[in-house]
Amino acid sequence: MFEELTTPAVLVDLDVAEANIARFQDHCDRHGLKLRPHIKTHKLPMLAKQQLAAGAIGITCQKISEAEAMISEGSIDDVLITYNILGAEKLSRLRELATRVRLSVVADNAAVVAGLSQAFTDAPEPLRVLVECDTGAGRCGVATPEAAADLAALIDRQPGLHFAGLMTYPPVGRDAEVQQWLSRTRDLIEGTGLTVDVISNGGTPGMWQAQDVPVATEYRIGTYIYNDRSLEARGLCTWDDCALTVLATVVSVPAPDRAIIDAGSKVLTSDLLGLEGYGHVLGRPDIRIEALSEEHGTLKADNISLTVGERVRIVPNHACVVSNMLDQIELVRGNEYQTSAPVIARGKVW
Amino acid sequence: MFEELTTPAVLVDLDVAEANIARFQDHCDRHGLKLRPHIKTHKLPMLAKQQLAAGAIGITCQKISEAEAMISEGSIDDVLITYNILGAEKLSRLRELATRVRLSVVADNAAVVAGLSQAFTDAPEPLRVLVECDTGAGRCGVATPEAAADLAALIDRQPGLHFAGLMTYPPVGRDAEVQQWLSRTRDLIEGTGLTVDVISNGGTPGMWQAQDVPVATEYRIGTYIYNDRSLEARGLCTWDDCALTVLATVVSVPAPDRAIIDAGSKVLTSDLLGLEGYGHVLGRPDIRIEALSEEHGTLKADNISLTVGERVRIVPNHACVVSNMLDQIELVRGNEYQTSAPVIARGKVW
Repeated sequence: MFEELTTPAVLVDLDVAEANIARFQDHCDRHGLKLRPHIKTHKLPMLAKQQLAAGAIGITCQKISEAEAMISEGSIDDVLITYNILGAEKLSRLRELATRVRLSVVADNAAVVAGLSQAFTDAPEPLRVLVECDTGAGRCGVATPEAAADLAALIDRQPGLHFAGLMTYPPVGRDAEVQQWLSRTRDLIEGTGLTVDVISNGGTPGMWQAQDVPVATEYRIGTYIYNDRSLEARGLCTWDDCALTVLATVVSVPAPDRAIIDAGSKVLTSDLLGLEGYGHVLGRPDIRIEALSEEHGTLKADNISLTVGERVRIVPNHACVVSNMLDQIELVRGNEYQTSAPVIARGKVW
Repeated sequence: MFEELTTPAVLVDLDVAEANIARFQDHCDRHGLKLRPHIKTHKLPMLAKQQLAAGAIGITCQKISEAEAMISEGSIDDVLITYNILGAEKLSRLRELATRVRLSVVADNAAVVAGLSQAFTDAPEPLRVLVECDTGAGRCGVATPEAAADLAALIDRQPGLHFAGLMTYPPVGRDAEVQQWLSRTRDLIEGTGLTVDVISNGGTPGMWQAQDVPVATEYRIGTYIYNDRSLEARGLCTWDDCALTVLATVVSVPAPDRAIIDAGSKVLTSDLLGLEGYGHVLGRPDIRIEALSEEHGTLKADNISLTVGERVRIVPNHACVVSNMLDQIELVRGNEYQTSAPVIARGKVW
């Protein structure tokens, strides 16, 4: 299996990724939803450009350094950074980034708004700022529609800033609540005379129900391009829809029920996402990836039936974090190896 | 706190790391144990050289690519790779590596031995091969002393190879069993006329009892140089002995009991090592790092008492995996920032 490759390797099947891009773009088109893919899953300008070519309106990044890496090859010109940005160096880089793309950011508190305003007060055009709303996921975001309206008003008053709308990272499976929260907030804000241009919702788990929050104007989504074991477990994809796999070699079969592979947490990561075990061995649903140390994966089965030197292909629990582990990925189409590619936005945490 | 640094950042306090190196080297010296540090914790030639200067006999690497990176600056000339090495490219690189350092590897099965022999059959000098023994940890290793003796005899018969001894990654807290297993194996093998030059034991959890397996001739250990929350939980170090910390900025305080920091699983990783939560906030034992997404860490406490823009310093659960996440670390001494350094052996999984 891909004998030309040294293992462990992270493989991306472009045929599968392209089909995933097309399938969800089609869903969005049918429902009149604008799509803004989150690049955290692939971290590759090449694939972001395919998402844009298919119809996406722009990209989502979590950090400035990701955005810088993603636009480094040109032809990506609309970026939303869904993160509270703080600190002199980051604000200076943000200011520079705004000269190169149509840039939007989010804020959920006055300290972030003050920093953004200071950095953009003399900018040629104001920075678009969305208010991040906690519609139930309990991460970032203002806690109530009233607080969202207050922050929108504050943004509108600050020099250098333009209040551009609302953004939420929603709780899974609670679309009615999210719809209600965002509608009420929009109405409150529009009642003050401000316009809510953008309402950005998102998340792969809710992708096929994206239309159930009709107040949203755009949908952010990352993992759908690769899929993974966590999405298969939710019934959102089949193994055949999983574009990212880890190719590993069996290095030891110490017991009839145990084999050790050369991929550990440095490739598969320890992300469980509520699952048991650290991945799915394709073609061997009887195998459990029971433990990982940094460079070893421990595979267990009643009858492991693997030999030293044999290769296995694993769908990881969480594709996005695996993309972040190696400097390069291997592009394939079906069983045909194409080329390797640097993961250009890997490790960008600033 | 380190205002010159952009967050998130991985900090290494050299004063603490140097004290950790000295403390355990002293323990080994007092007990007549040879120390062979595992570089997976720091991945820095600079610190490996300090370990050697303090008295270590060589280094341990898990993969060939790690060894290549570690010796790239010169002055490291004794490397043990504690991994079953398979495949044409790796064997060819191993052959090259053997021309540059005194190299030893391990094997736990005949297929690995056959590959090593084929690669080294016409080498100027034979490759030192240790038999990896499973003394109870249940990862790699031959299962019984008899199997170890059989593999030792096989290695001895193969052209290009020299049987050099035994290696184990031992179970924690079962030193008497490990001692018995290895003694019996040594006796079996020496009874056949072979010499067991090296018996390599290791592991940070058992570090202060390293002398309780007196049959071992050397001790491999990684995490002791940095320490981490998992070792503090085992009572092996104090927070003051933890050299590696993650510096993060509070980006949101959405509720009185919750704050969000700009370090998520892309820095702290999802490694739990049996603990609850994803790290320890120095000076704030009341805070739980309850959840991580890639770029967000969720901190909870009855009264979180943090403000947006404030910085926190976190001892991660597992230092080794955090070293693998960023391209650079920040070197400090106490509260004084020194410089940044590339993590030269980061992401080396081949």
